[in-house]
Amino acid sequence: MAGSTLSPDQLTALQNAATHLRIDSVRSTSTAGSGHPSSCCSAADIVAALFFSIMRYDPKNPRAFNSDRFVLSKGHAAPLLYAAWAEAGLFPKQDLLKLRTLTSDLEGHPTPRLSFVDMATGSLGQGLPVGVGIALNAKYVDKLDYRTYVLMGDGESVEGSVWEAVELARQQRLDNLCAIVDVNRLGQSDPTMLQHDMEAYRVRWTGFGWHAIIVDGHDLSAIVAGFHEAARTKNTPTVLLAKTFKGKGISFMEDQPNWHGKPVPQGADTQKAIDELTQQLKPNGTARAITRPSAVPTAMPAISPLPASPYKVGESAATREAFGVALEALGAVNPLVVGLDADVKNSTYTEKFGKKFPGRFFENFIAEQNMIGAAAGLAACGKVPFAATFAAFFTRAYDFIRMAAISQSNIKLVGTHVGVSIGEDGASQMGLEDIAMMATQPGITVLYPSDATCMYRLVETAANHKGMVYLRAGRPKSPVLYGAEERFPIGGSKILRQSATDTLTIVAAGITLFEALKAYDQLKAAGIAVRVIDLYSIVPIDRTTLLESARATENRILTVEDHYAHGGLGDAVLGAVGMEGIRVHKLAVRAIPHSGKPDELVDHFGIGARSIVEAAKHIIK
Amino acid sequence: MAGSTLSPDQLTALQNAATHLRIDSVRSTSTAGSGHPSSCCSAADIVAALFFSIMRYDPKNPRAFNSDRFVLSKGHAAPLLYAAWAEAGLFPKQDLLKLRTLTSDLEGHPTPRLSFVDMATGSLGQGLPVGVGIALNAKYVDKLDYRTYVLMGDGESVEGSVWEAVELARQQRLDNLCAIVDVNRLGQSDPTMLQHDMEAYRVRWTGFGWHAIIVDGHDLSAIVAGFHEAARTKNTPTVLLAKTFKGKGISFMEDQPNWHGKPVPQGADTQKAIDELTQQLKPNGTARAITRPSAVPTAMPAISPLPASPYKVGESAATREAFGVALEALGAVNPLVVGLDADVKNSTYTEKFGKKFPGRFFENFIAEQNMIGAAAGLAACGKVPFAATFAAFFTRAYDFIRMAAISQSNIKLVGTHVGVSIGEDGASQMGLEDIAMMATQPGITVLYPSDATCMYRLVETAANHKGMVYLRAGRPKSPVLYGAEERFPIGGSKILRQSATDTLTIVAAGITLFEALKAYDQLKAAGIAVRVIDLYSIVPIDRTTLLESARATENRILTVEDHYAHGGLGDAVLGAVGMEGIRVHKLAVRAIPHSGKPDELVDHFGIGARSIVEAAKHIIK
Repeated sequence: MAGSTLSPDQLTALQNAATHLRIDSVRSTSTAGSGHPSSCCSAADIVAALFFSIMRYDPKNPRAFNSDRFVLSKGHAAPLLYAAWAEAGLFPKQDLLKLRTLTSDLEGHPTPRLSFVDMATGSLGQGLPVGVGIALNAKYVDKLDYRTYVLMGDGESVEGSVWEAVELARQQRLDNLCAIVDVNRLGQSDPTMLQHDMEAYRVRWTGFGWHAIIVDGHDLSAIVAGFHEAARTKNTPTVLLAKTFKGKGISFMEDQPNWHGKPVPQGADTQKAIDELTQQLKPNGTARAITRPSAVPTAMPAISPLPASPYKVGESAATREAFGVALEALGAVNPLVVGLDADVKNSTYTEKFGKKFPGRFFENFIAEQNMIGAAAGLAACGKVPFAATFAAFFTRAYDFIRMAAISQSNIKLVGTHVGVSIGEDGASQMGLEDIAMMATQPGITVLYPSDATCMYRLVETAANHKGMVYLRAGRPKSPVLYGAEERFPIGGSKILRQSATDTLTIVAAGITLFEALKAYDQLKAAGIAVRVIDLYSIVPIDRTTLLESARATENRILTVEDHYAHGGLGDAVLGAVGMEGIRVHKLAVRAIPHSGKPDELVDHFGIGARSIVEAAKHIIK
Repeated sequence: MAGSTLSPDQLTALQNAATHLRIDSVRSTSTAGSGHPSSCCSAADIVAALFFSIMRYDPKNPRAFNSDRFVLSKGHAAPLLYAAWAEAGLFPKQDLLKLRTLTSDLEGHPTPRLSFVDMATGSLGQGLPVGVGIALNAKYVDKLDYRTYVLMGDGESVEGSVWEAVELARQQRLDNLCAIVDVNRLGQSDPTMLQHDMEAYRVRWTGFGWHAIIVDGHDLSAIVAGFHEAARTKNTPTVLLAKTFKGKGISFMEDQPNWHGKPVPQGADTQKAIDELTQQLKPNGTARAITRPSAVPTAMPAISPLPASPYKVGESAATREAFGVALEALGAVNPLVVGLDADVKNSTYTEKFGKKFPGRFFENFIAEQNMIGAAAGLAACGKVPFAATFAAFFTRAYDFIRMAAISQSNIKLVGTHVGVSIGEDGASQMGLEDIAMMATQPGITVLYPSDATCMYRLVETAANHKGMVYLRAGRPKSPVLYGAEERFPIGGSKILRQSATDTLTIVAAGITLFEALKAYDQLKAAGIAVRVIDLYSIVPIDRTTLLESARATENRILTVEDHYAHGGLGDAVLGAVGMEGIRVHKLAVRAIPHSGKPDELVDHFGIGARSIVEAAKHIIK
């Protein structure tokens, strides 16, 4: 970071840089025929100040250790971000003209396909939670001095996720985090709610405990001074509330409505815009000096294998508890593992990890969106974050999970209290759509261990697997089925019961696996032989075993799951074997659930042993 | 509402009522063996004040017109709510002892199975957005004088959705809305973030423009005075920040940690708690007077049929635009229809409705959670709300959609810009998981019109259908296939191409239907006859037609969809015919998408005519 007062030459250099960013943003979107140049122009001075005066980074290596981090929360200003990195020298400026084409990773909104992007943005309100995670990593985990900058739009200030992050950043005293709100007054379809009422922004942010600085977002001296003030502010995060104009610098676009998400038409209009901007370039201006990050010795921490599972066949334990036990053990052998909670740590058992490793455990209180955003931020810093809550409450953060999938983020999600088998608390607490919402995401791994041993092993497997993993966990205790030596590869399954005379394959996981085993006994007593498969890996799925078993049982499968019928385990099975002419019957929850005793509900909603026996007899008759 | 100062007798009566609510909450949870008595006890005085001094309602008819509305956002205090209605006389107190059983609708968390519940709660942070919708209805739609009270927990104040609602309520000047925060200091797993720092709460709420009153939440005179002050406050909503103690009134529970979600153990402990509470009952106290709502003449508005579709076969139009055209036309014939937007009304075309019916159109700015919560609130007031945004951004509000499904809410959701066919904006803007997340919800109807005529008709069908409906809409223009006279019943489909020699049934909807029609032509030219079905109704699905077509085409189906592979249209087809031995092959998006031209992406991700032809040839070979 340069000195806190700009020389006239430095000021001119920054102003020229901002103008170049505007020119490049106009040109690239105009060539693409789509994009958001007006949203780039309002923020160009802020970005110029960050990239060419404030931030410490290596322009040839965006992932250089201990670099300051920049998150473009207003992802539609992507052309501005790309122009800044081109201006810094990472790639040739002519690449900018490939914007938004299939053959370039300079996409319409930024994704981590690009080396300088930590997390995909473009769904508004997500940048600040991600920034919280990156700043948590610096302050509490890696204890580095890099700073994190998050550039937000004004329209996105209404998103609740922003205020979750604002609250958590204050609570965690993230003075290494600096948000900038580009208050350009105009949203997509209308002026923003607060327009240019800068004082209204100020009272909101200061009310939540932040240090807030109102600046003229087109005055580079003021912007730079604001960032220096932020860096001097201790124990609290700082926000720069920058009053700007959308389309700044282009006469026919500046502060005009109806320019959201519209390129300047190619031809004369584009030329006029570029001519106007070019005229704003000033002579002189020193070469822009980019400060490199301070060197810090690094070493990959040693990771050891997880000790053997403490569970013994015949014991009884809830898979959620086994998760907590495994996470605590994993923490001791893998220093990259961090934990995140949203005020249910005594139910998900992450409190075990939290008590043992308080410096690597982050309590998000009841803020699931911030939990996932912060987890993705931590993952972008090389950590292996486990975020756990009730499976039902991941629905609250589904947009964050979606964006994490697009980002190929290395986060691990653990959803407990799945299905009607949680019992008395009722529908609002029952995760019954979690497989549907998770399994549809690209690149995700979805695991559903039925017993404590399997959960214990899969926690380590999830940590070692590169990519997003979802682990589904039940509330009730269930018998331990597997010995400590059993292994559970991703994409596998376990055949628990089989004989040469089987006439039906029953596929289940979780609580319904035990119902299937009960049904097996009852069917056997009635002289009916069935096969029972523990499908602990839903995505990827063990197509080979499913198909072989179906072939061996007259091409018939019965699936049973404590999940709604659409998009669950049964549909995963159908997706794997549905083109083979196998007959797949599904038992699942097909109505709005109710409070009641777990066993009673499992039976009532048609996924218990009684229903399995009935369905099996009906299918094979 | 009684006078604003309580007489000593009135005060005693309220205090005794609060004590009775505590006793009933302890007794019912103790009998159930689960529940949250400590969370009931902190709020008992607030609820007593509302039910027995402040609110105007009919204790025998909770749905009486123009009644004040009460939303229990902290749904885990359900036993307190049930106790209040029993105390008011709606049902016998002995029913409270059926709490949390399968045979009683007094569930663990409240649902609208109960006549006095507008929306299911239990997922925190949802009550205030719902309250916003109920208050919007009073102030702007029905123009009634009922007031809306929302009782929140302190822990849930961290949920971002709360701040969306806080911002929107201020912006809409909802002075008929009163929130109460039960600041009982203790969360589930730890003390809350702000504990008893009442001033921290005050600056947050006043920073967002609310009138905030700090009260001792166990001082009934202060509580009642606070509610009267709220009623007198004009142009801005009011929040009562009530300092309380969890477990208030029970010596061994009051302000103690580790009592969240735990009943008092049956036997001596319960007796001790009830004895302590009983000793707090005071002699005298007037009979509690409940004020009835003011009578307002009501008449069901006349609803006329929608005029004929303006679209003609051979024209070209985007389904999202047809939605906007239909919604505007519907607004003129159905006065119950209201619209909600989240700053994309110029993309979803709800701006047409908004311009024509500004009093029935609610701009939520970029706050999708509040949009859905408010829609559910409006639905609870008998309105037919259409809430539209990009399909991708419904993921932001998925928890609200989940709770709306549990509530059997009559909301209509319209998701535009689905799939890779949106093109250059890239993955963050593409709805590719919307069918999975919607179709899994119980009781929902999922419709996916392919052309403008079908969309136009289905908008009316959705409005007239009782229950949640999701309409999926594409971004690009596509040909109009159907004449204005065509009808599209829920659960139907259209066979667009067929012959006696068909060897494969191709099932598609939206953009891929047109790709299937192109593939049909190419296959026909190659001498291969296939059947093409427009599956505009995904849930419920036209099983009969699918099965008959499959039977007629050698038991083979090929599905094609601009959606991820799991949980989409293909899985809906599999779910319908998968037990019949039909071979179903799916074409869907199976990778993280990219920016590019729409046609290019449709082809690149394997859902275009080229891939359909290839797959068809492979399947029938």
